[in-house]
Amino acid sequence: MNEGRIGVVETRSFTFARPPDTFRLECGETLSPVTLAYETYGHLNAQKSNAILILHALSGDAHAAGFHEGEEKPGWWDEMIGPGKAFDTRTYFVICSNVLGGCRGSTGPSSPDPSTGRPYGARFPFITIGDMVAAQRNLVDHLGIDSLLSVAGGSMGGMQALQWVVKYPERVRSAIAIATAARHSPQQIAFNEVGRQAIMADPGWKDGDYYDGPGPEKGLAVARMVGHITYMSDRSMEEKFGRRLREGGRCAGGRNIFEVENYLHYRGHSFVRRFDANSYLYITKAMDHFDLARGRPLWEALRGIHAKLLVIAFRSDWLYPAYQSQEIVRACKRAGLDATYCEIDSTYGHDAFLVETPQQTHLIRHFLRKVQCGQTTEAYEI
Amino acid sequence: MNEGRIGVVETRSFTFARPPDTFRLECGETLSPVTLAYETYGHLNAQKSNAILILHALSGDAHAAGFHEGEEKPGWWDEMIGPGKAFDTRTYFVICSNVLGGCRGSTGPSSPDPSTGRPYGARFPFITIGDMVAAQRNLVDHLGIDSLLSVAGGSMGGMQALQWVVKYPERVRSAIAIATAARHSPQQIAFNEVGRQAIMADPGWKDGDYYDGPGPEKGLAVARMVGHITYMSDRSMEEKFGRRLREGGRCAGGRNIFEVENYLHYRGHSFVRRFDANSYLYITKAMDHFDLARGRPLWEALRGIHAKLLVIAFRSDWLYPAYQSQEIVRACKRAGLDATYCEIDSTYGHDAFLVETPQQTHLIRHFLRKVQCGQTTEAYEI
Repeated sequence: MNEGRIGVVETRSFTFARPPDTFRLECGETLSPVTLAYETYGHLNAQKSNAILILHALSGDAHAAGFHEGEEKPGWWDEMIGPGKAFDTRTYFVICSNVLGGCRGSTGPSSPDPSTGRPYGARFPFITIGDMVAAQRNLVDHLGIDSLLSVAGGSMGGMQALQWVVKYPERVRSAIAIATAARHSPQQIAFNEVGRQAIMADPGWKDGDYYDGPGPEKGLAVARMVGHITYMSDRSMEEKFGRRLREGGRCAGGRNIFEVENYLHYRGHSFVRRFDANSYLYITKAMDHFDLARGRPLWEALRGIHAKLLVIAFRSDWLYPAYQSQEIVRACKRAGLDATYCEIDSTYGHDAFLVETPQQTHLIRHFLRKVQCGQTTEAYEI
Repeated sequence: MNEGRIGVVETRSFTFARPPDTFRLECGETLSPVTLAYETYGHLNAQKSNAILILHALSGDAHAAGFHEGEEKPGWWDEMIGPGKAFDTRTYFVICSNVLGGCRGSTGPSSPDPSTGRPYGARFPFITIGDMVAAQRNLVDHLGIDSLLSVAGGSMGGMQALQWVVKYPERVRSAIAIATAARHSPQQIAFNEVGRQAIMADPGWKDGDYYDGPGPEKGLAVARMVGHITYMSDRSMEEKFGRRLREGGRCAGGRNIFEVENYLHYRGHSFVRRFDANSYLYITKAMDHFDLARGRPLWEALRGIHAKLLVIAFRSDWLYPAYQSQEIVRACKRAGLDATYCEIDSTYGHDAFLVETPQQTHLIRHFLRKVQCGQTTEAYEI
């Protein structure tokens, strides 16, 4: 295998809770069966002690690294996963699964409801970040792994990492929570709700039963456009687009359109081809209702946990502002956890967790080595 | 008249460019006739030297102060306009008109096109902030006023104030530009574009010809929801809503809805009853294409101007960040203008210009007195 390249990978799937078994959700309802799409990179060692679970954000999937046969675009975190990279596949066995509720191979609203044979649609039960993590635990069991060396992700991936630590403290030796929050602020909820309203306002949504037609394409595109604004920073948009006009582009009023408008249109419409609107509704709701502490003070929820934490925030990320990461770390310290906080001075906004590779690589590589050696990590605070 | 109360007011209208005359727009097209809805408060003095033109933001109208007969809600800037208030109607003659392109009595896309007798819809010509100001100049002429003591407004109102100074420097003695910008950043354009896309995605929009039906109600509501998030700050949302759930409210997934979601729904739907979707499209486009300097360095556009400027920004306003106001003031200083910059430490975000009454009152009252006396204003910089 070449240095830095994983090569061609395949998405596999794992199904559990086959009838008559069921998978019980936090809302009290059950699913049966449940499938998770997943990929793995590297090799599980004999002690099964080198496994790292990568957790994706809202629109991510199991394809975190490497290339699918015949495709030119690598997985969504390929810069970070591979031989010699932050998550070094020469040393670690890396797993990534599409979340429960997703639409990229895992059971979600677009999956067939066994009781009708038709897609669940809005009859899919309410799911939580805790349910996503519980489903992943079944996959980890299936892979024969008792204890994960680390769980790691950005944005909603960071929520899942934190949830793993609190829900299954005996199964996780460390967690890397990037550009995330222990619970959504009303502003974060509000941006998600605008996206949901745009989807549900589209007559193509049909109360979620749109799978025999094109679906709420325009509404989902609008939702994604809102998202993209929040993923960038004022400054990164200025640097990328300025007030440049698009040659030949015309808006309704007959004027040239701005480059930034064209970018949003492109991003909105390309998203529609790869994402299910109902998954967007369910997953954003799961994020909004996520509350790691479940109403308690956060440090109480973290008490007695032995996992080491690396918490990373980005200075220009206004969707998941650094103060939310700082709150997590303060609670960790109060609860006696070994937690490291790093604030990276990026201009890329929330997108930084996907693009600021060198700094994250440095931090994560050293953090993981320390975790593997059982050493304290706090010396790496910068 | 009671201290602090204007009492009952009426919106009047002024029509100009009646056929065969026309009103030429910056895009080269013409309108005929043009009507502006306006209100006035206080009395024009014998020298006609005490007139102040108030300029409204995106969704404002001519009803800036006082009460309409039988209504309980006062005008949108009633806290700032009246006897003893910032714009003291015992001293000043205050005028406010609904902008060209608006839907509250002034000529706009919902007005009848004389050539067809039906509403213009998307056949309404492209309008600019310069066109809005040129239309207002006709109203000011009609009122017999050669020179305005001041032009003042927040957000898009601030853009118009700045445009007045540059377009008609001999007609304006001072300008008060609040929470505004000399041109939109790509982030500001992007938020507006999301609103426009939401409207145009609604099949009720019908390419703008919806006046015989309900129109794009859901799309316009979504546009307004996006707007409301940008008008508040992260902190003001936290203080107002936190993560409180609405009793009895249920979302599609069967969960309680958050108070902040309920607030957005309410704001979105109430906006639909009072605003025209096509006006939203045209006015936001005018804002996005506004560039006070028209591509030149800003200070060059301001050279030779004698109007005094008061520029106010709010620290938590992330839609029109303070750096945009600072750019205006820096350009003024370089161009030799008498400009005062004040940054108010509010938590209300962009909404602050509508709610931070005492501090703005203090600043504006003293600024206007100095302008009236012909004194330099710079001593009032804080």
